[in-house]
Amino acid sequence: MLTFVGLGLYDERSITLAGRDAIASADRVFAEFYTSRLVGATVTDIEAFHDVDIEVRDRAGVEQTPDPVLDAAATGDAVFLTAGDTMISTTHVDLRLRAEARGIETRVIHGTSAQAAASSLTGLQNYRFGKATTLPFERSHGGDGVPASVVETIEDNAERDLHTLVFLDIDVDDDGEAYMAGDTAAELLADHWRPDALGVVVARAGSPDPVIRADTLDTLATMDFGDPLHLLLLPSSLHYIERDALATIADAPESLLEEYLAE
Amino acid sequence: MLTFVGLGLYDERSITLAGRDAIASADRVFAEFYTSRLVGATVTDIEAFHDVDIEVRDRAGVEQTPDPVLDAAATGDAVFLTAGDTMISTTHVDLRLRAEARGIETRVIHGTSAQAAASSLTGLQNYRFGKATTLPFERSHGGDGVPASVVETIEDNAERDLHTLVFLDIDVDDDGEAYMAGDTAAELLADHWRPDALGVVVARAGSPDPVIRADTLDTLATMDFGDPLHLLLLPSSLHYIERDALATIADAPESLLEEYLAE
Repeated sequence: MLTFVGLGLYDERSITLAGRDAIASADRVFAEFYTSRLVGATVTDIEAFHDVDIEVRDRAGVEQTPDPVLDAAATGDAVFLTAGDTMISTTHVDLRLRAEARGIETRVIHGTSAQAAASSLTGLQNYRFGKATTLPFERSHGGDGVPASVVETIEDNAERDLHTLVFLDIDVDDDGEAYMAGDTAAELLADHWRPDALGVVVARAGSPDPVIRADTLDTLATMDFGDPLHLLLLPSSLHYIERDALATIADAPESLLEEYLAE
Repeated sequence: MLTFVGLGLYDERSITLAGRDAIASADRVFAEFYTSRLVGATVTDIEAFHDVDIEVRDRAGVEQTPDPVLDAAATGDAVFLTAGDTMISTTHVDLRLRAEARGIETRVIHGTSAQAAASSLTGLQNYRFGKATTLPFERSHGGDGVPASVVETIEDNAERDLHTLVFLDIDVDDDGEAYMAGDTAAELLADHWRPDALGVVVARAGSPDPVIRADTLDTLATMDFGDPLHLLLLPSSLHYIERDALATIADAPESLLEEYLAE
């Protein structure tokens, strides 16, 4: 049996009770942190919390040499941990399909996800979001500014009066990790799209001290939101309750919110 | 302090450890189950599991007379439980804003959500979903068939090559609860939209025995997916990995999947 378990959003206590129980009853516990990781807990923290050894696999160790994971799942109970919800990346789906192809039973235990949290924390209604997008570091997409596809997604959503959730680039390599900050993202979009557009930065969703700030992109670009992870939301028109939520929870200037209030 | 806690998707073990700890340290625990409820656990189950009394509020008891909740939060630690993630409904946002207006500190502890689970369980990639919609019972929207707005959302997403997640109506009133089944939803859309369209039914997301089946809507309409909750997904074009996932996990006919494979 191969059980995929989402660790949730922030630290070792973000996992569900069902996920914790799956870890406790597993013969071996694997994890990958190249698609995302918990910013509030190290692997050592998670190991200590659950009193287990975690075998961390890098991208090659999942995608090119998955056999140690599959062999463990074929002969016993293996758990595969990921940050956030699980199965979000194709790399996990691929591993699940390889297991099924070998006749290994698979199971999914969900974790909390950034997408749901972004909506919950801001008061922006989840059914009013369109397609999400990811804003890459300039060095990652090999060009200056903001990729045209990101702007197209935002404007396509706006045309349909839908909010956009912008995931911010995470760059994990042998030299370490870099997380795009909310102010960097706001600056990129202020410079290459619309400086006066309303943006909402969500910092550390799922942590005990999330920060939520709404303002124009050029103003958000001047702020410091502290430790990662950050998300950027670009609202379309606002319903009254969304306007009130951004005023109360996100310290948004009233005059800016009035511009966005739906007629 | 007023802490909103998402109970997650299915039963008393779907909550996060952080959520469980918030319940354990609360002076009073409130809940509402009119927007959604856990299908794998009763209120009594949840009370027994956490060894607490839960004061269940109906819609009027949250929206019209929230003072008992707010008073408890003003003088001690109150927890407000909801199914799924929390703060998803405007009714929760409204309660949070009322608390903030009274100077009561608020906090959000996230739960797993149907939207993330629908993507995880099917292998359909979460960044390829457009706006979600809800399919109401015919008696609920006071008309025959499928509301035009539902079809518009599906077709608008399809034009942009985006998948659609369709939430199925939950009808809670004094006479009890009714959950629209996946086969009913498929039949409604087969009759009033496209019988030959590919659909994916997800039954009991977050439970130990979810069922995932992909086929044409008119075929799905003949199946029985068992106990609630059910969701219906309408894929746009499929990437290879999505095609493979629906073939393996959802028993989809190969010929139907080939029609949907992206060029």
